[in-house]
Amino acid sequence: MLKEWVKEERPSEEEIAERLKKARVELAARQVAIKEKKLPVLVVIDGWGAAGKGSVLGRIIKNLDPRFFNCETLASPTEEDLRRPFLYRYFVKIPAAGKITFFDGSWMGEITSARLMGEIGDKKYKKYLTSVKRFERQLNDNGYLVVKFFFHIEEKVQKKRIKQLLSDTYTAWRVSEKDQWQNKHYEKCMDVFDEYIDATNQFVAPWYFIDSANKKWAELQMTEILVSSINTALENAELHQKAPLLQNTFPLKKIPRLSEIPLNLSLTEEEYKEDLDRLQKRLGELHNELYHKKIPVVIAYEGWDAAGKGGNIKRIAAALDPRGYVVHPIASPEPAEKARHYLWRFWNRLPKDGHIAIFDRTWYGRVMVERLEGFCSENDWQRAYNEINEFEKELADWGAVIIKFWVQIDKETQLERFTERQNTPEKQWKITDEDWRNREKWDQYEVAVDEMLMKTNTSYAPWHVLESNDKKYARIKALKIVIRALEKRLGEQS
Amino acid sequence: MLKEWVKEERPSEEEIAERLKKARVELAARQVAIKEKKLPVLVVIDGWGAAGKGSVLGRIIKNLDPRFFNCETLASPTEEDLRRPFLYRYFVKIPAAGKITFFDGSWMGEITSARLMGEIGDKKYKKYLTSVKRFERQLNDNGYLVVKFFFHIEEKVQKKRIKQLLSDTYTAWRVSEKDQWQNKHYEKCMDVFDEYIDATNQFVAPWYFIDSANKKWAELQMTEILVSSINTALENAELHQKAPLLQNTFPLKKIPRLSEIPLNLSLTEEEYKEDLDRLQKRLGELHNELYHKKIPVVIAYEGWDAAGKGGNIKRIAAALDPRGYVVHPIASPEPAEKARHYLWRFWNRLPKDGHIAIFDRTWYGRVMVERLEGFCSENDWQRAYNEINEFEKELADWGAVIIKFWVQIDKETQLERFTERQNTPEKQWKITDEDWRNREKWDQYEVAVDEMLMKTNTSYAPWHVLESNDKKYARIKALKIVIRALEKRLGEQS
Repeated sequence: MLKEWVKEERPSEEEIAERLKKARVELAARQVAIKEKKLPVLVVIDGWGAAGKGSVLGRIIKNLDPRFFNCETLASPTEEDLRRPFLYRYFVKIPAAGKITFFDGSWMGEITSARLMGEIGDKKYKKYLTSVKRFERQLNDNGYLVVKFFFHIEEKVQKKRIKQLLSDTYTAWRVSEKDQWQNKHYEKCMDVFDEYIDATNQFVAPWYFIDSANKKWAELQMTEILVSSINTALENAELHQKAPLLQNTFPLKKIPRLSEIPLNLSLTEEEYKEDLDRLQKRLGELHNELYHKKIPVVIAYEGWDAAGKGGNIKRIAAALDPRGYVVHPIASPEPAEKARHYLWRFWNRLPKDGHIAIFDRTWYGRVMVERLEGFCSENDWQRAYNEINEFEKELADWGAVIIKFWVQIDKETQLERFTERQNTPEKQWKITDEDWRNREKWDQYEVAVDEMLMKTNTSYAPWHVLESNDKKYARIKALKIVIRALEKRLGEQS
Repeated sequence: MLKEWVKEERPSEEEIAERLKKARVELAARQVAIKEKKLPVLVVIDGWGAAGKGSVLGRIIKNLDPRFFNCETLASPTEEDLRRPFLYRYFVKIPAAGKITFFDGSWMGEITSARLMGEIGDKKYKKYLTSVKRFERQLNDNGYLVVKFFFHIEEKVQKKRIKQLLSDTYTAWRVSEKDQWQNKHYEKCMDVFDEYIDATNQFVAPWYFIDSANKKWAELQMTEILVSSINTALENAELHQKAPLLQNTFPLKKIPRLSEIPLNLSLTEEEYKEDLDRLQKRLGELHNELYHKKIPVVIAYEGWDAAGKGGNIKRIAAALDPRGYVVHPIASPEPAEKARHYLWRFWNRLPKDGHIAIFDRTWYGRVMVERLEGFCSENDWQRAYNEINEFEKELADWGAVIIKFWVQIDKETQLERFTERQNTPEKQWKITDEDWRNREKWDQYEVAVDEMLMKTNTSYAPWHVLESNDKKYARIKALKIVIRALEKRLGEQS
């Protein structure tokens, strides 16, 4: 695309000045509409070194209200970033509803640099492209506007600009070694940029090329495109348009319905104690090993109220070195979380490699409580199965061991436990009116859980049902599953 | 993708048989739902030669009701096909609402063959990819389900199968030279297939790989995927989910609003006669030339009722050789047309290269009458601006000269002409109640026309306003514009 791109003829200076005046006013006016419609806008600026990205961005934000936007400079990933999934550092910086975030540099830079330096092969490169396409499409599907700019200058212009900047001590610092390298290998860079742009030019997040030979002209092009793209997104918001569901492309394994699961499994107190000791010891050893091998682990707990999630998690956690794990209890989202993609708060809570994150309730809230209580639209939760499969694929590709537990009890057992809590003063805090209300919706929840298990039981992030009418049985089963999964991964590694 | 693909382990024969029984019943049951929800389903089957595409397709349709599906075998394009845009022969065969069409072979075959034979360079290849992505996405956006299969076998298996087929005179005919060539150049083919699949694997039309080493297993995979994909599409249909609007990526030129256009332009009878003679002669010459140079021409007429479209078209047509042009009067769509993508009837009416097609009313009906009369949803006409720009880009890339006329009059002139028609017995047939009803909606139409002109005035298919209060002026202007456009193109060619 970039190679075949035919530049528009640059208008006269007068025309540029006149259109710029108008476009600036229009863009400024859009801020209010963005705020009102709660539109999150992500503007991505990539391009050649010395193309003037920074100074054009500077001109554009001069006309905006600082309360409505922020800028993020995406330099090379830090040591910390490298211990998380590739998309982590970008995902955590996405804008809130009603705000514009400008990314000065993006994942394009990271990927094409690695490609140019020969740091990644074809296979990894293709994986990155898939991640990027999913990321940008998910943002779009969740109501984000994503506008991607590439600032283009020709080889000669770049050379001249670099020379000019270097000749003045006040501007010389703005020329990086990378810029100079780029100019020396312009053709090679062009090939890699072109290939990347072709592969990531999606209808939902298209690329726009900015002819950057002249700054005012570049500002005009960028401003006019921003206004036009924002208008489209506002129209979509006004029409409440939602992204249709996608065909599933993830390998799903069959899983029984909840009603088919026998719940008469149990352990004696002796069996339990013996197993618990032995398994916790083994888990502790494995934790050490995966810490050294830098394998990240994500354990997700979902289940009925009073099914015994808390006690089950405790038995896992007790075996672990406190410096190497964290338990995230997930309640309803904070305002800052509500204002962003619903997976944002989980991206934010991902462990570093070598660490274990245990989620006490998870991103599956989207297709259970949010679905049943109407906290999101039907389209939102319907889309979420695929979005969650994509999210977990991201974790799996990063190298995470993913273990998902559904803690299962029957309706009678729940009633017994609720009643016991109610009647035991020191346990009364554990039972709320909401628990009783949820219980009334048991059958609806069961439908939702069955659908969730069926649609998200992927080969890379499978569900495990823990039969928890007998809590002891469930705890031992959980420990065994975690141990088996870690042994399997550690075995593959050695 | 294909290269990195990790096959699922093939289940036991018993499991395959059991699942197949269930899947066949499910697929058969979906036919009724497809009919009820008026879902059009396009199934595309590509893959290696001798992978068993035909025989698996044969097994699948055995269980379907012939009233609900049809099969199309896409061989190499004919001489006739090659005189039309690349997508033409595929677009005209898309299914009607409520039906499944199986394409045995597709545009993938045509493009990858050309690539393998070195018949197309990078630039043309990329253009094809863009066309394909737009085509598949437009189908999806317009409510089609597109399911794409690639039947995969390994080099050795292919070799063995070819040998086996050739050894028997009853089956030898099924092995083509192409199949044998493929096997000899398996690695090279793999590279080209993989590149194509990567580039066209869109979320709205993903690729599915079928492990084709075993026929029953291949049938099972294909049937299960079909059921799952149809289920998704049915859910979308049930939720009335529509595709959101896309950011515009086409170069738009400014165009004045209708209210800004002066309508006092006119010609004397002498000027008119002199110009008409001269210009028609010139147009006749140019028609000859473009016939020989095989340049296709599409002339689109839109305008107010009684603006003088018919008379204007007559003056163009009179200059042309009747063997080299056709006028398409566009009325409301027939049932077969209504059951398909709204652009289908225009694809069907595209001229051969070297020929001229004049459309008396056009695809722009979508954003005028269909919009204002509610013949399509708001989402449908909102999306149509981009879909039309894409359609015309397809024509432009094919090499067509595209000329779009808006025949403009003012409200008073229309009233005069309506009244005259009403009062002149031999003209009464030209005026209907509908014309009067449309006239009442003049202001709404004007809003729609202004929006249409603004959003579809691309550099490759620009609008021309014909000031037609004086019909003579408008006719001469139209002739001049057509002549200029043809001269420009013929000039570029020589």
